[in-house]
Amino acid sequence: MAQSAQPFNRPALEQLLGKRFFYAPAFSLYGGVAGLYDYGPPGCALQANVLDIWRKHFVLEEDMLEVDCSIMTPAEVLKTSGHVDRFSDWMCKDLKTGEIFRADHLVENVLEARLDGDKIARNAPVEVKADKDEKKKKKAAKVTAVRLEDDVAQTYKEILAQIDNYSGKELGELMRTHQIKSPETGNDISEPVVFNLMFASSIGPTGHLPGFLRPETAQGQFLNFKRLLEFNNDRMPFASAQIGRSFRNEISPREGLLRVREFTMAEIEHYVDPAKKDHARFHEVASYKLKILPASVQLSGKTELLDITVGEAVEKKIIDNQTLGYFLVRIHMFLSKIGINPDRIRFRQHMANEMAHYACDCWDAEIHTSYGWKECVGCADRSAYDLTVHSNKTGEKLVVRERLPEPLVEEKLQLEINKKVFGPRFKKDAKAVEEHLASLDESVLEELKKSHDSAGAFAVQVNGSSFDITKDLITSFERVSITTHIREFTPNVIEPSFGIGRILYCLMEHVYWTRPEGEARGVLSFPPVVAPTKCLLVPLSTNEAFVPVLNQVGTLLRRSGVSSKVDDSGASIGRRYARNDELGTPFGITVDFQSVQDNTITLRERDSTKQIREKIEVIVELLKDMCEGKTTWEEVSAKYPAFVSQEVKDDE
Amino acid sequence: MAQSAQPFNRPALEQLLGKRFFYAPAFSLYGGVAGLYDYGPPGCALQANVLDIWRKHFVLEEDMLEVDCSIMTPAEVLKTSGHVDRFSDWMCKDLKTGEIFRADHLVENVLEARLDGDKIARNAPVEVKADKDEKKKKKAAKVTAVRLEDDVAQTYKEILAQIDNYSGKELGELMRTHQIKSPETGNDISEPVVFNLMFASSIGPTGHLPGFLRPETAQGQFLNFKRLLEFNNDRMPFASAQIGRSFRNEISPREGLLRVREFTMAEIEHYVDPAKKDHARFHEVASYKLKILPASVQLSGKTELLDITVGEAVEKKIIDNQTLGYFLVRIHMFLSKIGINPDRIRFRQHMANEMAHYACDCWDAEIHTSYGWKECVGCADRSAYDLTVHSNKTGEKLVVRERLPEPLVEEKLQLEINKKVFGPRFKKDAKAVEEHLASLDESVLEELKKSHDSAGAFAVQVNGSSFDITKDLITSFERVSITTHIREFTPNVIEPSFGIGRILYCLMEHVYWTRPEGEARGVLSFPPVVAPTKCLLVPLSTNEAFVPVLNQVGTLLRRSGVSSKVDDSGASIGRRYARNDELGTPFGITVDFQSVQDNTITLRERDSTKQIREKIEVIVELLKDMCEGKTTWEEVSAKYPAFVSQEVKDDE
Repeated sequence: MAQSAQPFNRPALEQLLGKRFFYAPAFSLYGGVAGLYDYGPPGCALQANVLDIWRKHFVLEEDMLEVDCSIMTPAEVLKTSGHVDRFSDWMCKDLKTGEIFRADHLVENVLEARLDGDKIARNAPVEVKADKDEKKKKKAAKVTAVRLEDDVAQTYKEILAQIDNYSGKELGELMRTHQIKSPETGNDISEPVVFNLMFASSIGPTGHLPGFLRPETAQGQFLNFKRLLEFNNDRMPFASAQIGRSFRNEISPREGLLRVREFTMAEIEHYVDPAKKDHARFHEVASYKLKILPASVQLSGKTELLDITVGEAVEKKIIDNQTLGYFLVRIHMFLSKIGINPDRIRFRQHMANEMAHYACDCWDAEIHTSYGWKECVGCADRSAYDLTVHSNKTGEKLVVRERLPEPLVEEKLQLEINKKVFGPRFKKDAKAVEEHLASLDESVLEELKKSHDSAGAFAVQVNGSSFDITKDLITSFERVSITTHIREFTPNVIEPSFGIGRILYCLMEHVYWTRPEGEARGVLSFPPVVAPTKCLLVPLSTNEAFVPVLNQVGTLLRRSGVSSKVDDSGASIGRRYARNDELGTPFGITVDFQSVQDNTITLRERDSTKQIREKIEVIVELLKDMCEGKTTWEEVSAKYPAFVSQEVKDDE
Repeated sequence: MAQSAQPFNRPALEQLLGKRFFYAPAFSLYGGVAGLYDYGPPGCALQANVLDIWRKHFVLEEDMLEVDCSIMTPAEVLKTSGHVDRFSDWMCKDLKTGEIFRADHLVENVLEARLDGDKIARNAPVEVKADKDEKKKKKAAKVTAVRLEDDVAQTYKEILAQIDNYSGKELGELMRTHQIKSPETGNDISEPVVFNLMFASSIGPTGHLPGFLRPETAQGQFLNFKRLLEFNNDRMPFASAQIGRSFRNEISPREGLLRVREFTMAEIEHYVDPAKKDHARFHEVASYKLKILPASVQLSGKTELLDITVGEAVEKKIIDNQTLGYFLVRIHMFLSKIGINPDRIRFRQHMANEMAHYACDCWDAEIHTSYGWKECVGCADRSAYDLTVHSNKTGEKLVVRERLPEPLVEEKLQLEINKKVFGPRFKKDAKAVEEHLASLDESVLEELKKSHDSAGAFAVQVNGSSFDITKDLITSFERVSITTHIREFTPNVIEPSFGIGRILYCLMEHVYWTRPEGEARGVLSFPPVVAPTKCLLVPLSTNEAFVPVLNQVGTLLRRSGVSSKVDDSGASIGRRYARNDELGTPFGITVDFQSVQDNTITLRERDSTKQIREKIEVIVELLKDMCEGKTTWEEVSAKYPAFVSQEVKDDE
């Protein structure tokens, strides 16, 4: 890709994205609402193409079971899943103005500003974040050139390296220790209080059924576990997948599409046997190299990346198991395929305190942007957490039953009661006493048996009362041999979870550059496979003679599944191609007078601006193959002669 | 299609759809929530295929601008659009038990039950609705064999024909007049009260920004009107489109997917010049015949359908304009293409009182089901309603500016004031008086001018005070000629709006039948283009020898974009095909020992169960063409010899 070496200019990109309506703040007629965005035609098409690749790369490639579940969720479900109690951030207030901050962001902003001020005071170069938009600038902490003691600066750096790891109480302590005030007013800040991130509502006309908008698509998949396992003919391992909208009522959304209140997710729940977390296709990816940042490194206050094959990382237990490692590679492949710069992807492991309440391990695929490294894909090991809590709550077994290769024979101490005597003796307590006896551990039974054999009775405590279990209540209390043919277990879940909007934004940053000619002209070099429109059709002028050829080309392209747009406006061809560069359309076809005579057309490639000229059928076939990723422009331009005689100057 | 002549059996279909996880009640582990459903793998794939066809049929075919907007919507937007005040149903309560009913449904249920009772009493055949599920049966009004007076029965029929046309007050009157009580308890019913159908929430941490989940995708499109018009290079007419989730907090969801609280919609907003509602492609559809039910027929208490070409209907003004007529045909074509029985589609015009508050005309595409005729697509003329209210509220112009072919020259009476005198004379009232004068109609100005010319002054009333406009306040008050080059207008909107879940349910009813052989065996005869999976791959047995051929066929199919599933379970081939009939997979490929030797495979078609046997490459090519709608099984089976020697009995 012929990208410019110019420094990245975020305001210019944002202006382009707005002008061409990739996306725009929602409800802007009404002043807008932070964290809500609308996608216009090119953004919508880009998203559809990325989701289409996602579906092929994950769902089709691995025969996953795709579902589409309800967004509105009764509160009881999210109470059980732990989201009602624990899906929250820490919020604090300016004690005088009432302005609300997310506590960790406030600490982060203020300390970063102080470190920048320190650098200025030392005449060291400051990483300019000046391209934050105007509103943000105001909100960000002011940078003042004040030199810090060396140990203070070091402390700040260590805090920032683990900023995601603090509890609300710890954040409050940090604020007091480091005298963090409201950035604009200098007022004192309240203690951090918990703020639940779910949007609440009420279902039905009675007002008695509280509900929330789902904060992730995962719960719908877990609740359908039994149906899905059955659909999969009870085979393990297997995965379900879902693409859909989720909602998080962020305290202070910021950084455009990177932190929003409503977003499209794509989530996979891959169910594995906890005793066998190996992956059948791991050998295919073992030599794939990843850049990783383990939790241990971060906790030591550092951020150096480790460049390592996934095979080695799993062997050394840096990555816990093969299945997790396999998915990290598949995620990296997917992101690279859609056009994310592979050198700007890293995998960061969560530290204990930042982990979601349901996860026992988590690696984020982070993408480097002008805002720094941003989490775009989470890959969590949710263990048996969700299936267990839902099963405990509802009494429904959510397990896999597996026929053992060999029956398992175990010796067990078994106590059988004489129901005929038991009932009349204990009356209303009989059931509770019976259940208590059935629930006792082997080791406890051993002790009781001693008493039973020696004293002829033993006592148990049930609901605060003591019950004597005498010999006449027992029909047998012996060691017996039990044969099991079936193993029953709750599967563990590995969950790759994609924030599509974040990925789209990172992609747009990575493929953006400006042509050096004349005034800087923006280009979005989307790979053909994700580009919103694949081909622009440009008649040389508005002459009627071109219409039949245009229609013919358009029809052939449509039949080949190559999306195209005609630009028959009066603007110069150069200007029309410039507009198209901004839309990221990889190819352009020009129809001229020669086309009308000999059925040839020119094909221009966006990044190189080079052209070839061939018969219509040939060009259409080449386009189809390039858009499906079967060949590349490099191969095509090596094979077909460059067309130069009628080269269209881009500044025409 | 070789469909059975057996009567439709809804419980059997519902059992099949649940067993094969097309869809299922959401949160059923937690007892379920009425009106919320999850789609399993086949339902999800069916929906994706239907949406894909929708996108090609409407968005691509007519170059519509697809957008993807926010679901969470600030209350102010929906207050302006009229939804906060008027998007509601009438609700009433059993005065003793507190049970809640939707008022119109209650009246409908009770009167229908009385008419059924009358028929029984007269020994007339009753249209059996016995296939309602158990829960429904309980809720429905009890049928008792009581003979009605002829005029009473007639009144009931007339009420039912216009049941959608009553206000809450009228429904209350009907309940009193016809002594409608709570069906189960016989208790009195409260007066109908209004219940807003939107789910409410709150945006952000302050609690001061109320929001609703959008009840339609339309508002997001209207709010982006300016951006979209600009994206379309200011050309008219044009359309935007959106596919996405919407939410309606129904009082009592019922009839499965037909009335739910959360659903996927696909909506088109087609902007037209109110002075030119013709459509450029109307001639292509003018001779297309539709079954329609105009409002006038319903108001006369009748339900007979009119079979008419859309050309004649528009000419006779039964359908208001060409654009509306054009879309009705396109809707009919779409529904037919995905497999809805075209004989079971009718277009019913809304009566005045049932029309949504934003519509000035509306035709519903209704599909006939075992529940009766059900609205699945609305096609409303929203006139300039939405753009006007948003523009008035926000002060942003939402108009089209069109260069006139010839400048327009108009004579106008124009009053110019002398600002130097005007300001000092009227002080704080000066601005209001000036604005008042500028707002006056030509006819009023004529009158004032008379007074001005004769008496040298005239008086105007502004904000309750009288102001004398004397000659010294006026610099000129003359007839002048004004030339306009631009015409500015607010476009009207024609809105085809599709309820995808309803359409899917109707489709599943229409394609369901049972094979007569042996015990009734369900088949879903989806057209190949919408079928969740296109092809089943069946090895004759679990013999390892078949694996290479299976893999080869699987790879070729994947490359051709034909989705397939392997069923290598140990079940008999007949049983595997039966499972597949229930999933609606149109084709099956059998790999046997001959395949391994000569690279031929058999292809079986679901509905006929006929087979052909050809080389792998030939079969794959045929499958691709049939799944893309380029050829049909009828054509294929006419061309290739039937394969019978190894016919697999379906009851094997």
